[in-house]
Amino acid sequence: MVKKALYLDDLKVGDSFISEKYHLSADKIKRFANEFDPQAFHCDESLAEDTFFKGLAASGWHTAAVTMKLLTGSLPLAHGIIGAGGEITWPQPTRPNDVLYVKSTIKEIKPSKSKPNQALVIVECETLNQRNEVCQRLVTTLLSFRKS
Amino acid sequence: MVKKALYLDDLKVGDSFISEKYHLSADKIKRFANEFDPQAFHCDESLAEDTFFKGLAASGWHTAAVTMKLLTGSLPLAHGIIGAGGEITWPQPTRPNDVLYVKSTIKEIKPSKSKPNQALVIVECETLNQRNEVCQRLVTTLLSFRKS
Repeated sequence: MVKKALYLDDLKVGDSFISEKYHLSADKIKRFANEFDPQAFHCDESLAEDTFFKGLAASGWHTAAVTMKLLTGSLPLAHGIIGAGGEITWPQPTRPNDVLYVKSTIKEIKPSKSKPNQALVIVECETLNQRNEVCQRLVTTLLSFRKS
Repeated sequence: MVKKALYLDDLKVGDSFISEKYHLSADKIKRFANEFDPQAFHCDESLAEDTFFKGLAASGWHTAAVTMKLLTGSLPLAHGIIGAGGEITWPQPTRPNDVLYVKSTIKEIKPSKSKPNQALVIVECETLNQRNEVCQRLVTTLLSFRKS
């Protein structure tokens, strides 16, 4: 289903968006970790037992990447999701077979002074598991455009 | 080369660490984007021309993942690189054939009051390209452990 693109005038503080769900298997966790975060607690179930995480956990950057995937399907900003950055925290690890979804809420809209057709939109994106526990909280600044 | 693991007592504010280099090809950019950030400006050179980025650019989360890969080889914290989160910005896009490296600098060391064998270490990680332009700045909070 193609969602209607949202322009600046379509957005208001408090609007929220719920993504589809994403199943994170142990195999996916280990494949991402082998490429980008090759540490024992992300790559090997048995080695992970004796670490801080006490079992296999996804790289936080894997949770972030999955979050982005879910945002691309749930936050249909016109001209795309273009982020300048954000604050990210991982209140608890993402585990094998977690089923993740993202709830995004618009917290603030800051019109650009120099570019009247643009605004910065502050969006809080919570990545939740199947028990509705927050695995990642991202407060990010995104670009939004007026319909021209 | 296996680097000596660094415990809390080995770290001091101002210490810095330089990673190896990582070549980010257009194919890698598109492969990551197809899985995690399937937007035109990350997936297709010709479609990317007419976007905000005016050409193919890596997903910011890909730059973050590559940064983590480079950190695992350059910041040998004992018990691993365990992050609680951080502040991330992308001052400019990462482009095909950029050669990235990471410079990490310890900014602050905050001993834990409740866990005397631990501290939170604030590390600024700049991800630079072959022209020494900052593509990503990450200020992250990592766990460090005293040698027991």
